[in-house]
Amino acid sequence: MTGTDTLFTNISQLVTPRPGVQRGAAMGDLSVIPDAALLVSDGRIRWVGPRAEAPGTAQEHDLGGVAVVPGLIDPHTHAVWAGNRLADFEARVQGVPYEDILARGGGIRSSMRATGAASVEELVALARPRLQALRTSGATTTEVKSGYGLDFDAEQKMLRAIQALQAEFHLTPTLLIHVPPTEGRTEYVRAVCEELIPEVANTGLAETVDVFCEKEAFTVEETRQIFVAAHANELHFKLHADQFHAIGGTELACELRALSVDHLEASGPAQIAALAASNTVATILPGVTLHLGLPAAPGRALIDAGAAVAVGTDLNPGSSPVFSTQLALALAVRLNRLTPAEALTACTVNAAAALGLGDRAALVPGQRADFLALHSADWRDLAYTLGANPVRSVFVSGSGIQAL
Amino acid sequence: MTGTDTLFTNISQLVTPRPGVQRGAAMGDLSVIPDAALLVSDGRIRWVGPRAEAPGTAQEHDLGGVAVVPGLIDPHTHAVWAGNRLADFEARVQGVPYEDILARGGGIRSSMRATGAASVEELVALARPRLQALRTSGATTTEVKSGYGLDFDAEQKMLRAIQALQAEFHLTPTLLIHVPPTEGRTEYVRAVCEELIPEVANTGLAETVDVFCEKEAFTVEETRQIFVAAHANELHFKLHADQFHAIGGTELACELRALSVDHLEASGPAQIAALAASNTVATILPGVTLHLGLPAAPGRALIDAGAAVAVGTDLNPGSSPVFSTQLALALAVRLNRLTPAEALTACTVNAAAALGLGDRAALVPGQRADFLALHSADWRDLAYTLGANPVRSVFVSGSGIQAL
Ligand SMILES: [Zn+2]
Ligand SMILES: [Zn+2]
Repeated sequence: MTGTDTLFTNISQLVTPRPGVQRGAAMGDLSVIPDAALLVSDGRIRWVGPRAEAPGTAQEHDLGGVAVVPGLIDPHTHAVWAGNRLADFEARVQGVPYEDILARGGGIRSSMRATGAASVEELVALARPRLQALRTSGATTTEVKSGYGLDFDAEQKMLRAIQALQAEFHLTPTLLIHVPPTEGRTEYVRAVCEELIPEVANTGLAETVDVFCEKEAFTVEETRQIFVAAHANELHFKLHADQFHAIGGTELACELRALSVDHLEASGPAQIAALAASNTVATILPGVTLHLGLPAAPGRALIDAGAAVAVGTDLNPGSSPVFSTQLALALAVRLNRLTPAEALTACTVNAAAALGLGDRAALVPGQRADFLALHSADWRDLAYTLGANPVRSVFVSGSGIQAL
Repeated sequence: MTGTDTLFTNISQLVTPRPGVQRGAAMGDLSVIPDAALLVSDGRIRWVGPRAEAPGTAQEHDLGGVAVVPGLIDPHTHAVWAGNRLADFEARVQGVPYEDILARGGGIRSSMRATGAASVEELVALARPRLQALRTSGATTTEVKSGYGLDFDAEQKMLRAIQALQAEFHLTPTLLIHVPPTEGRTEYVRAVCEELIPEVANTGLAETVDVFCEKEAFTVEETRQIFVAAHANELHFKLHADQFHAIGGTELACELRALSVDHLEASGPAQIAALAASNTVATILPGVTLHLGLPAAPGRALIDAGAAVAVGTDLNPGSSPVFSTQLALALAVRLNRLTPAEALTACTVNAAAALGLGDRAALVPGQRADFLALHSADWRDLAYTLGANPVRSVFVSGSGIQAL
């Protein structure tokens, strides 16, 4: 044991799912150690257990009698954007159809124009407080996507903004193939596969490729081409699918062993069965349900069928202005009928699996020491609390992050 | 002008509803002054207008180019309670019926037992962080109810806890007649009218009497008796009604000119028409809709019919663990289809009217200088933001409240 060891003590409950992806009933199976301690060495967990059995020689850090849970993983955000969608928001709640919002210059194309016009430095400055808000809410690792680029340069600019923010946050960068061009889509998909994907793979700007597979976006066949290119370039791949229509994207993703399929509001029995039979994580996004008033993804049915469910904020200006990973967790209980224990698993080990990460999100020896001290002695306040932050302190690699 | 005058400047937008209760279409009619200033003298607003026209001799306070809105009023909370309902929460989301939760010792009677066993000092210590959370979210005046008392002593103990917190917060105390006894209800209602209400009126422990009028609670006739007693003792009165069944409480409240009727999830055309034709405020509580997954109150239909709608958190441990008045405002847009402007009116002047207060909640000369500086230059972020606090600073009587 060295001088860098810290024994965290006075933990009312140390709560963790088992490490690795958890499916079906196993999602509800947490370990809860009362009066616990947690030994951290060089940023990794070295030991966890009852306080009375803790190794005795490390420097102590008294956590004040509160519950400790793993740091949350937010597996789906679009946290880099410029401009705002407040006028769209106001119009939509007054009943203006999305087509009319688009026609008056709003909608996703307004985010694309503003993002396209911003510099990397501007995008970094805009994204930083959003990522700080997510971290304050408990997210110790956050996925961030490109996808508002009007062209490949703008896509890579977004990825460079994400890269610049890696000095302050643990981010996993994803190249999102989001909006098809109004003409020349065959050439566009070919260029994505032959130019953009190899380029971001070579430069290391993205770890994963995501596609928006939907009636109004990319087809299943186009998605397959993009997945094949991602795989050939040794990138992970994942999917936005079944948001409005189940057109086959989920089945394709399961067949090709994508990391995750995200949204799933329109998934039916066939898609649920495909996910339950696969290694692909089903990522649900309850903020969209709340913000747009659309149907909720079948979280309960997915777990009952045996799937591995993760939860994310989908933080984005148009369909989910949810600046708290904890709120996404709390909403999954209300809107998708997860239990508090399942929601914690969904926001930790399963979210990590959705990002291809196996080294964090469970409080067991060997994992990264990313954890949260709550305000409460009862961890269930993490899922119960609405509108206030139940997270008192965020620890990354065993070090406390200064609150803002 | 004296040395205590302060001119608040560098306000991107100064946004306010008109003073006094606003009904129907007038709820959406805000004043938005760009590049504004706000003059405060002895805790009251003395002048508002464009910065260029501001009186020039006061001490200046630069607000940094953000939007300013009135302090929010939370017109419906049960912020004083002991114990917790986390086990109930976990059971309910797993599908355990409320009757079974009651049978195993949970439900409202567990809050009543724990609150009955707590001292005034304990209740104060438990309520303080909840009220701080509401204020941080923008509430500068908050209503707090009794109602978890097993007996009259416990009810008055709750009211004394609210009184003790008046030194730190602007609270309006309400005596809530909440849970009928299992036997002897005629005597109970008579004692409420002849003993409890005169006592709290004489001691000044409550300003208003509230009744839970529902199939499982008090009847319309019992409610009438209690209202008559409140009126005879010069107390305001208001009602929990139409939460599950529209049994006539709303019509009674409108007939007797109650301050407000709160909940309204089960209100139909007759109740909406009664509210629209009355001076009684319709207070809706979207946190309950989110937390319990029950139907939303017809906020849109109430406004379209010409009613005055207010919004509150209904902060309580069983049906609305919503610790943010801003979140209640934001939820009213998503769940009750209010526009952002209507939601601001609902959470300011209409909520003040629901408490019988006419001296605050509009940013016009003569009103209390209770206002919020947002993080954003666009006030609509107040309604748009989910999961983070868009309120940067809270000013009460012109003085900034230290954040926690
Ligand atoms: Zn997305
Ligand atoms: Zn209530």
